Amino acid sequence: MACLWLLVGLFLLGSAEAGKLLVIPSDGSHWLGMKPVVEELGRRGNQVVVVIPEASLSMGPSEKTTTLTYPVNYTKAELHMVLEGNLTEILSTDFSTEVSKFFVFFLQLKVLQNFIVRNAEGLLFNEDLMKKLQDCRFDAILTDPFEPVGVIASEYLSIPAIYMQVNLPCGVDSLASQCPSPPSYVPQRNTHFTDQMNIWQRCINLVRTLLQHMACRYMYAEADEIASRFLQRRASIVEIMNRATLWLMRFDFAFEFPRPLMPNMVMIGGMATKKPKPLSKELEEFVNGSGEHGFVVFTLGSMVSQLPEAKAREFFEAFRQIPQRVLWRYTGPVPENAPKNVKLMKWLPQNDLLGHPKVRAFVTHGGSHGIYEGICNGVPMVMLPLFGDQGDNAQRLVSRGVAESLTIYDVTSEKLLVALKKVINDKSYKEKMMKLSAIHRDRPIEPLDLAVFWTEFVMRHKGAEHLRPAAHDLNWIQYHSLDVIGFLLLILLTVIFVTVKSCMFCFRKCFKKSQKKKKA
Amino acid sequence: MACLWLLVGLFLLGSAEAGKLLVIPSDGSHWLGMKPVVEELGRRGNQVVVVIPEASLSMGPSEKTTTLTYPVNYTKAELHMVLEGNLTEILSTDFSTEVSKFFVFFLQLKVLQNFIVRNAEGLLFNEDLMKKLQDCRFDAILTDPFEPVGVIASEYLSIPAIYMQVNLPCGVDSLASQCPSPPSYVPQRNTHFTDQMNIWQRCINLVRTLLQHMACRYMYAEADEIASRFLQRRASIVEIMNRATLWLMRFDFAFEFPRPLMPNMVMIGGMATKKPKPLSKELEEFVNGSGEHGFVVFTLGSMVSQLPEAKAREFFEAFRQIPQRVLWRYTGPVPENAPKNVKLMKWLPQNDLLGHPKVRAFVTHGGSHGIYEGICNGVPMVMLPLFGDQGDNAQRLVSRGVAESLTIYDVTSEKLLVALKKVINDKSYKEKMMKLSAIHRDRPIEPLDLAVFWTEFVMRHKGAEHLRPAAHDLNWIQYHSLDVIGFLLLILLTVIFVTVKSCMFCFRKCFKKSQKKKKA
Repeated sequence: MACLWLLVGLFLLGSAEAGKLLVIPSDGSHWLGMKPVVEELGRRGNQVVVVIPEASLSMGPSEKTTTLTYPVNYTKAELHMVLEGNLTEILSTDFSTEVSKFFVFFLQLKVLQNFIVRNAEGLLFNEDLMKKLQDCRFDAILTDPFEPVGVIASEYLSIPAIYMQVNLPCGVDSLASQCPSPPSYVPQRNTHFTDQMNIWQRCINLVRTLLQHMACRYMYAEADEIASRFLQRRASIVEIMNRATLWLMRFDFAFEFPRPLMPNMVMIGGMATKKPKPLSKELEEFVNGSGEHGFVVFTLGSMVSQLPEAKAREFFEAFRQIPQRVLWRYTGPVPENAPKNVKLMKWLPQNDLLGHPKVRAFVTHGGSHGIYEGICNGVPMVMLPLFGDQGDNAQRLVSRGVAESLTIYDVTSEKLLVALKKVINDKSYKEKMMKLSAIHRDRPIEPLDLAVFWTEFVMRHKGAEHLRPAAHDLNWIQYHSLDVIGFLLLILLTVIFVTVKSCMFCFRKCFKKSQKKKKA
Repeated sequence: MACLWLLVGLFLLGSAEAGKLLVIPSDGSHWLGMKPVVEELGRRGNQVVVVIPEASLSMGPSEKTTTLTYPVNYTKAELHMVLEGNLTEILSTDFSTEVSKFFVFFLQLKVLQNFIVRNAEGLLFNEDLMKKLQDCRFDAILTDPFEPVGVIASEYLSIPAIYMQVNLPCGVDSLASQCPSPPSYVPQRNTHFTDQMNIWQRCINLVRTLLQHMACRYMYAEADEIASRFLQRRASIVEIMNRATLWLMRFDFAFEFPRPLMPNMVMIGGMATKKPKPLSKELEEFVNGSGEHGFVVFTLGSMVSQLPEAKAREFFEAFRQIPQRVLWRYTGPVPENAPKNVKLMKWLPQNDLLGHPKVRAFVTHGGSHGIYEGICNGVPMVMLPLFGDQGDNAQRLVSRGVAESLTIYDVTSEKLLVALKKVINDKSYKEKMMKLSAIHRDRPIEPLDLAVFWTEFVMRHKGAEHLRPAAHDLNWIQYHSLDVIGFLLLILLTVIFVTVKSCMFCFRKCFKKSQKKKKA
């Protein structure tokens, strides 16, 4: 009965097949990726309950759904402060070597993890709320496993789990879905390798693949502890993730390197990209101001709107020397002699700008949303990856000849200028990007519809058992046929042993006979 | 110019994006699976040219396409006679052991191969026709790789190849597409194993997997010879298949065991299943004749309409003892006292009968078309696999609890009766089948539309390079990282060697010193 009040206010559109869906999203850009699916599911008459913490970066109410919040022991301001501090550190740190990149990646994750753990505790140990969620008897849960809170909740509530994800740390998606990832051509996350590796890169990639299990154990150590405490048994996140019903993968092969998939993986990359809308009169006038030269869009994502002063100067200097106009999302200090062709804004209508016929280049940090908007609209890019999967993202586009990549720590106006001129004036960047765009947009069904369909499928059929590979019932030794290889080797050795012994026996017999004859 | 006359008579519907498609199908049920796609592609305004031999079992003109025929050195009558002779042998042979099953499978393929080779030679060495096909400059070729003639032609014409296939011999699809098939849970073809294997079965499956390369080399030896002769270079079918652009897989996970896939594989199982139509008045009266008991449909496929007399008697005897009426596709001799509840027909409207609300069971050989019609309409089955993939098909349905399987060589009226009563009276068969049916029919897009979309996609974009895994650029040693493992081991051994040598050197130095001291 406790569920009833939860669902008050839901717009039941009368669909007889409507299901009850629990949504536990992840913060930041992750929520921006999930929100359109959640809203569409609500619009189609499903009872959708979204559970989020009281303090978050980007999460909030969504249309046609019920939003429930729970208190957490941190504030939005604290969240902003720590994450921005972390970003400032990245912007001024030299992480040019492979080792430093690796450690920066782990350090960033540790900072995030602190909040992830506190968020998980906030929901899971909120007995009232968990009891209510249990009473609701949801048909399924849609969650982003980047934060394990939804993963643990799905295990507690014993309902089919649908994971919507993009580039999980330590490649836990491959491990948990039992998806083969041959290290010879599937590059590990955060290596910045392509699918064409030289022998040295393949060595690193193999070692990284072998260490994947260990890395995941380290990454999820705190989450495992919370899961065990909450579920009151020894539990591990990877083991719970094994039971995922469906993986909604926010990637598309126009962008990702081709690699094996599992039947319960659905590709929905570029799902959140919308049709560009016309610009406001003021913006339209500005972008048309440089005539045929067009304009450049520059943003480093929702979390970075400032830069250290010296670094900002390099950008202003570079922009001064190009004939294009520049729209830059920037709220930092402006030098006195700032170039006239640059317009600074607090917020950019990014997708609408990228869809404008006069856009010539997109300077971006390489977050997955921006990338798909860029690909969809066919805009060549200059990439300045900051953290997480952005380095890999940049490498993917560079390898396709549609982008140039620079490192933020040592960027100069000269380097920036060379990269900008290259992607704007060398026609091959635009041509290749238009081909990529055509491929990306040419799909039998919209990725949003696909995500909605499969979520409803799981609700309708109470799971998708027919897509679950039997690999999950095998242990590591069995999966790799090591027991079978051992068994066959044993048989082989026994056969060899018996044959050799028999031969020796016969030989000795014959030998003795001939010796006796000789003696005689 | 020679292409122009080929396309006369095509109904160009004015689609600006229409492509030019060459179709080289395979005979028998393979063509029945491909025909709906070909016709739909023609209907959508593509210029579709279907090239078939003058003598075939089932191939003929299709709607909205141009059909070209070429002479072959065998007749339709010869084809029928040899294949039916082969089937008669199967029907009267004891192939109860694993070894005999395996050899019967290879013998059947050898019989087929003889025709396959003669067909390939008929087309490839028909210089006039091949010249005309080359002049046409097709955008893509759609072919069934079961017969390698289309595979070789695609290589000669240098156009993107789309393979539509179901269960290729020796699992060449896995090899050629570089799709991982872990032998621990992906059963090899014709083993009749499920995805849950005991250790003994896993041993056999591993050995079969290891022998796959060799089996394919043996299977395609003659085709390799033709390819080499025709292309005037050393060529192998598996190597040519490596370059396939797209694999249209005629299977669905409602039926197949979940296993890894590649991005250029599209699942289109059950594509040919149509909506059932109402029965003729005569048939409707017959099937309603037994009231609530309903009726049973019995057919052993398009190629088997007769049975040895003794075997037929067993079936008549079994059918006499059930309250259901039986519709049997049978043209053999009828015993004098044939039961009244059995209606013998030369041809059955199979799908329409399976869609009738009073159908209770489907007795079938387990061909893929019949199986998907049975699943789609939710009818439990009694299976009598004859050859090829039918044994595996039967095993898949039995493991899902929706069918019983019998061996044709030792079938008796008692066994048949037990199986029939089981699938009709034990409600679990029907319930599980209805669930399977619901899952199979619940898809975001019709498989026919998917096949048409992806074929047009390849024509539009002149291939699908973005879906081709880099695995194809690696040799066997590289793919399995054996070179990398060797290299890493070498480094490890060198480090150990140097460390040990250094320690020994130091130890010796120290030891000498202490000895000198002692002496002193």
